[in-house]
Amino acid sequence: MTAFTDFHGLRARLAAAPGPDADAQAGAEKRNAQLTKPPGALGRLEDLAIWYAGWRGTATPRLDSPQAIVFAGNHGVTVQGVSAFPADVTAQMVLNFRGGGAAINQLAQAAGARLDVHALDLDRPTQDFTHAPAMSEAECVAALLAGWDAVDPKSDLLVVGEMGIGNTTSAAAIACALFGGTAAEWVGRGTGVDDAGLANKIRVVAEGVARHAGGDGLETLARLGGRELAGMAGAIARARVERIPVILDGFICSAAAACLFKVERSALDHAVAGHLSAEGAHGRLLEALGKEPLLTLGMRLGEGSGAALAIQVLKGAIACHSGMTTFAEAGVAAG
Amino acid sequence: MTAFTDFHGLRARLAAAPGPDADAQAGAEKRNAQLTKPPGALGRLEDLAIWYAGWRGTATPRLDSPQAIVFAGNHGVTVQGVSAFPADVTAQMVLNFRGGGAAINQLAQAAGARLDVHALDLDRPTQDFTHAPAMSEAECVAALLAGWDAVDPKSDLLVVGEMGIGNTTSAAAIACALFGGTAAEWVGRGTGVDDAGLANKIRVVAEGVARHAGGDGLETLARLGGRELAGMAGAIARARVERIPVILDGFICSAAAACLFKVERSALDHAVAGHLSAEGAHGRLLEALGKEPLLTLGMRLGEGSGAALAIQVLKGAIACHSGMTTFAEAGVAAG
Repeated sequence: MTAFTDFHGLRARLAAAPGPDADAQAGAEKRNAQLTKPPGALGRLEDLAIWYAGWRGTATPRLDSPQAIVFAGNHGVTVQGVSAFPADVTAQMVLNFRGGGAAINQLAQAAGARLDVHALDLDRPTQDFTHAPAMSEAECVAALLAGWDAVDPKSDLLVVGEMGIGNTTSAAAIACALFGGTAAEWVGRGTGVDDAGLANKIRVVAEGVARHAGGDGLETLARLGGRELAGMAGAIARARVERIPVILDGFICSAAAACLFKVERSALDHAVAGHLSAEGAHGRLLEALGKEPLLTLGMRLGEGSGAALAIQVLKGAIACHSGMTTFAEAGVAAG
Repeated sequence: MTAFTDFHGLRARLAAAPGPDADAQAGAEKRNAQLTKPPGALGRLEDLAIWYAGWRGTATPRLDSPQAIVFAGNHGVTVQGVSAFPADVTAQMVLNFRGGGAAINQLAQAAGARLDVHALDLDRPTQDFTHAPAMSEAECVAALLAGWDAVDPKSDLLVVGEMGIGNTTSAAAIACALFGGTAAEWVGRGTGVDDAGLANKIRVVAEGVARHAGGDGLETLARLGGRELAGMAGAIARARVERIPVILDGFICSAAAACLFKVERSALDHAVAGHLSAEGAHGRLLEALGKEPLLTLGMRLGEGSGAALAIQVLKGAIACHSGMTTFAEAGVAAG
């Protein structure tokens, strides 16, 4: 039996998903106030630890088993010349992920995260969304389920990333359809198109949005998205249901997450933004999601790379929260 | 034989310190351009790896042996009521560092860094700088040498931190004396003084600067600083001479570093700013030093905590740089 068989089923799973454990969160807040530091002196690390404690259901959580998953997909819209790289690079990079040679391999290893790679029907690109919906509901559900099933329910943190030549175009179209504004406001240079390429991307996104706007988050995901975006959305949804905290990656990951957010406002309560990408519209997208990024390092690689790096910030937060002594234990005057 | 016996000797060591290895840096730049990612897609991680490669003298560096050192000192200026915590807390926190219960213990461990703690004459506070120079040259040189000698020349990265009730007052006075502006522009709330406490800190800093301004970096360090600030400055100077890269911590660490910068502009070329502290004037101080922070997480704890967390960013940068495959090796089209 699959977790859901259509969009309606996934909407129901999101609506029924449990929130964080209020007792664990209150316990973590109490503990945080007793640790040997001036109140608030660890800044966002304190908020992160308390947030994580709530989702993990314990006032002194650990972070031992992070899982990173990279989804890959191919986009029919690449025939419109929207990327600086040929579509073959998607499959080549999947081999690179499997061989351990990409950035995400190094960053996942540095963070002690398991890395899984799921190539989703690379030989069957989505439709060019300027002419037709990128995916049917059935195709989109299959990719959502691939993401859902890729999550190890024993993981204590999830990072999802992507590879898919053309997918900043897809992400920009989704963001524009979901949040309004002009195509130009949502389109950036991706892996590095020139000025003419940028103008072309804007045209393509505007055409796609004009053709497909008006659906809810999941309908928009099917019409303008790609299999790797649906895979990420499915994995984030599964983590929400399993109370596994998530660190979001860059623009494309955030666009996938936004599709869930539009279905259910609480669908991303278990997620923090790992970083602010250099892809132009990412800041606007994070604002729409109400998320403040942990890192701002000018990264724009995708693959889950920014989120994987941000695992280290969360690990530091949890190490402080669960490992520090209290004023009473240490015999330190509390000011 | 000590490395130097007076300020003149340290100035000479800084003036003679070697720069980064230009060949290693060029080799790292060349390698960076061949890695399996779009050009520039790892943002600041790319700059960090190339910078680190230059100082370590190899195009494919590793980061295996980071050293964190916390210096502690007591400040006579606390009699002016500048801190929300009693001066006894300095010694209590040293015991906490040695017992493994402080934030820096958890963050150093998470980063795989060795942690050393040096308590510098805690029973002999500096003079209240509103009445006299905080230290004589001989006292300041002794603390600088304690820092110099604390650095393990086999380390491949250095983080320095501090503990010293009253030392945001000292740091604000140093910054004001070195870079001008009013006391109010450099004074923040430290561990958490109220409005009246803030006004008092501004008065104290203004009095200290009025009495002691006009010296060079090391003279200012002696007149307005503290032993833990001199310890940090001595360690940063030693790292510069040994070509060990440094990650600067927050406001107090940056003020200590600024004393070297004022002596020799190249004295901090081996250093990056680990984070932007929530202590109000830290951003202004980093600007004066020409350093852009890696992290902005609202931390204001000191102890080297922000810098220790930033080790993870540098580790990620180096892991990508030295661990990724090239386009040619991976058989990926380079766009």
